[in-house]
Amino acid sequence: MSLPTAFDALMAYERETQALARIAGRLSWDQETVMPRGSAGQRAEESGAMESVLHARRTNPQIGEWLEQADPPDADGAAQLRLIRRSYERSVKVPADLASALARLTSRSQGIWAGARAADDVAAFLPTLAEVVKLKREEAAALAGGGDLYDALVDDFEPNGKAAEFAAMFGEMRPGLVALRERALNAPQVTPLSARFDADTQMALGGELAETFGYDLTRGRIDRAVHPFSSGSGEDVRITTRTAEDDPFNCLYSTIHEVGHACYEQGIDPKFLLTPAGQGVSMGVHESQSRIYENQLGRSRAFCGYLYGRMRDLFGDFGVADEDTFYALVNRVHRGYIRTEADEVQYNLHIMLRFDLERALFANDLQVGDLEAAWNDRFRADFGYDVNRPANGVLQDVHWSVGLFGYFPTYSLGNVYAGCLHEALRRELPDLDDQLSRGELSAATGWLREHVQRHGGRHEPKEVITLACGTAPTAAPLMSYLETKFGALSGA
Amino acid sequence: MSLPTAFDALMAYERETQALARIAGRLSWDQETVMPRGSAGQRAEESGAMESVLHARRTNPQIGEWLEQADPPDADGAAQLRLIRRSYERSVKVPADLASALARLTSRSQGIWAGARAADDVAAFLPTLAEVVKLKREEAAALAGGGDLYDALVDDFEPNGKAAEFAAMFGEMRPGLVALRERALNAPQVTPLSARFDADTQMALGGELAETFGYDLTRGRIDRAVHPFSSGSGEDVRITTRTAEDDPFNCLYSTIHEVGHACYEQGIDPKFLLTPAGQGVSMGVHESQSRIYENQLGRSRAFCGYLYGRMRDLFGDFGVADEDTFYALVNRVHRGYIRTEADEVQYNLHIMLRFDLERALFANDLQVGDLEAAWNDRFRADFGYDVNRPANGVLQDVHWSVGLFGYFPTYSLGNVYAGCLHEALRRELPDLDDQLSRGELSAATGWLREHVQRHGGRHEPKEVITLACGTAPTAAPLMSYLETKFGALSGA
Repeated sequence: MSLPTAFDALMAYERETQALARIAGRLSWDQETVMPRGSAGQRAEESGAMESVLHARRTNPQIGEWLEQADPPDADGAAQLRLIRRSYERSVKVPADLASALARLTSRSQGIWAGARAADDVAAFLPTLAEVVKLKREEAAALAGGGDLYDALVDDFEPNGKAAEFAAMFGEMRPGLVALRERALNAPQVTPLSARFDADTQMALGGELAETFGYDLTRGRIDRAVHPFSSGSGEDVRITTRTAEDDPFNCLYSTIHEVGHACYEQGIDPKFLLTPAGQGVSMGVHESQSRIYENQLGRSRAFCGYLYGRMRDLFGDFGVADEDTFYALVNRVHRGYIRTEADEVQYNLHIMLRFDLERALFANDLQVGDLEAAWNDRFRADFGYDVNRPANGVLQDVHWSVGLFGYFPTYSLGNVYAGCLHEALRRELPDLDDQLSRGELSAATGWLREHVQRHGGRHEPKEVITLACGTAPTAAPLMSYLETKFGALSGA
Repeated sequence: MSLPTAFDALMAYERETQALARIAGRLSWDQETVMPRGSAGQRAEESGAMESVLHARRTNPQIGEWLEQADPPDADGAAQLRLIRRSYERSVKVPADLASALARLTSRSQGIWAGARAADDVAAFLPTLAEVVKLKREEAAALAGGGDLYDALVDDFEPNGKAAEFAAMFGEMRPGLVALRERALNAPQVTPLSARFDADTQMALGGELAETFGYDLTRGRIDRAVHPFSSGSGEDVRITTRTAEDDPFNCLYSTIHEVGHACYEQGIDPKFLLTPAGQGVSMGVHESQSRIYENQLGRSRAFCGYLYGRMRDLFGDFGVADEDTFYALVNRVHRGYIRTEADEVQYNLHIMLRFDLERALFANDLQVGDLEAAWNDRFRADFGYDVNRPANGVLQDVHWSVGLFGYFPTYSLGNVYAGCLHEALRRELPDLDDQLSRGELSAATGWLREHVQRHGGRHEPKEVITLACGTAPTAAPLMSYLETKFGALSGA
């Protein structure tokens, strides 16, 4: 009997940490779905205790010693070490008192933000937001080691993502999107839905679509929650959705979107179960899966034809004359203020606005006190009309209140990646539209599993997309897809 | 600013441990209710990791140092120290390799037992059971420090419970119970239910009864599971039940039983939240609450009158002529093999059988190889007919397969305690039957909350009952209650 190697000892330790992290994740799922409403106080203590355990494990100096001695047996092992080193170095760079001050502040500030948003009272939130930005700047400085502060924050969500690259890419996309938005809004508008759609039937159809898109319900489940989300990795990946009886697309497309996230986690090679590589590699790649499922596949003309039929089967005549009208309705571009309700064209404009503002905050080119004016100016420039109230403007998203700076650009990065993957997928499956029109998704999702999902965290994010597509990602495929699709829909 | 005292530091540490233990408990709830069936492998690792964290915390030598220095500020503090000392001393007495061997074995042996039970194959289970008994003997020896092995195991479930005392008490009860059983079986039998009862309506009525009995659903929830159970403490106490369309009493009385457990946990003084005293003090006292809710209150003639009316409201005419027939049906004594399906009279005979056998195993008066014969002989003696198959005999309960020796007697102890509390409650509330006949439970459950539940772990178990009743507990009130009730039902 020989002693375990440093590599084996480290991996065994990481496996236990991963198992505990899965428990912490499920605790959040529980909180958003089934927790009794009177349990919030005790739950806060439970979550805090769990975070303490995880923080102590992640900063354990023994990890540093193992990392010095560990000899990876193969390429997978080398990838695991790279991920462990990244996480460990990040954890030990942030002083414990700063980490705990940030945790306390952001847990408090979320409530202050929610109250301010409900009251449309920007001033009530700004002092807290200023504190959050101040502590996040300190954290970024600790992480950046002299480098760019904002990039240090981006790195948490998109490893090696660089704001300058995003900015260049977004700069190329923006004029085309603004023009597309204008063309769509000036075209004849389709009449919105006016029927009622039974909520339980929406959930039943959502469950059917989830399985159609490859979600394995023996290792997952679908519940209702206030906000749709996907939670978990490996053998237990759960999603939520929501229902509104006047808007079935909210439930159905939220479901398909979350199924994209969930299929990524479920599709990771089982050999990576409960290891650092056993999770989606970045928010951008994650979002590429949810977006291609929801948009390029789910909102395609071919699939809309299939879905129209299923909805007629289940809901009867709901006042939409034919497949083409249904397709136009599913892809309706209309005036609005809210990012999460935006169509494929305007969504990216919402993101670019937030990206530029938060980047300016961390470059000290913008002060928190000037944030609302900057938001409103930029909104008018890109969308052509004024923000009508702060809840629809600078107060609309939770992200900043909980310190999520550097997260927003990964949504549009996901769209860009989805555009690249969609182009490659179409090349690979010339009869994709035939399949989609029959509600047949297995070849498309199988290709994504094989070329993206199964790798988990094994490659760097950009490398995953490059390997899948054969070329490095650019915004061109997404822009060409959007211009073709929305050009046609606008009758151009 | 002064340093925290040893007492404060210890309590802060315990609070975090309690919070983590609540998470571990909720993980089990999740597994029994909502976990996808394909997640069992990952879940086993998660549970193991959580147990490792808890074990490390509970055996942390720092606890021993704090205990030496800690000075309790008041009587509550002294009770907390007593509970912490008991838990710490127990944890450090068992060698880590024995604890982990037991955890591995009992996790494996449960599956072997389930397979053997399904196949009625005692021989397939005995070698594993012999291993379990062997390791539990080692554990008991480590805990007992020269004292009685079986008492050392009982102590985990009923602190300071002594098998000799149980044996004396059970010895007094047994002849009376055997005689009652015989009288009831020789009396005219009531016709069983033959109607169907919609499962969702059963659940709705169960929810209504749960609230009637004082369960606070803002800090709890009711789900379906294979086995009814109660889970959690403090602000998040959840119960499960099950439904069978031909047997509504299974759902309704399981619900009331679990509500008794849940109300105990919910009724504990909030000052004990997330502390060692913030949980029910023993299995016996816990079972006294579930049993008095289910039996002395829920199966009383007066409450049965009320429940009959509610069931007629919801299910229409279900073929039961009147309240008296309904009452006789709810309290039907009939031949059967299964403990969990037994009535109030025969239930205790099932327990005494198990208690005597497991006690003999640990006294080395009985060998595992002779267990089935001993079970069958004793069953014939107490019940008057033969066990028809092992699944209905020695293989029926999960307890021994997972090493739960010393647990069974606490069920009957709970019945005895419920008898004492019921006698005191009747003295205190002379018009209890009037209230029960109107479905009015708040005075009864309020008395139990005030005199038993709110104390949590503050007093020793027997002391809780003594304080509530004014005299030390004996079996006499239970026996007198059973003889009166079942004597009348048998037409004697």
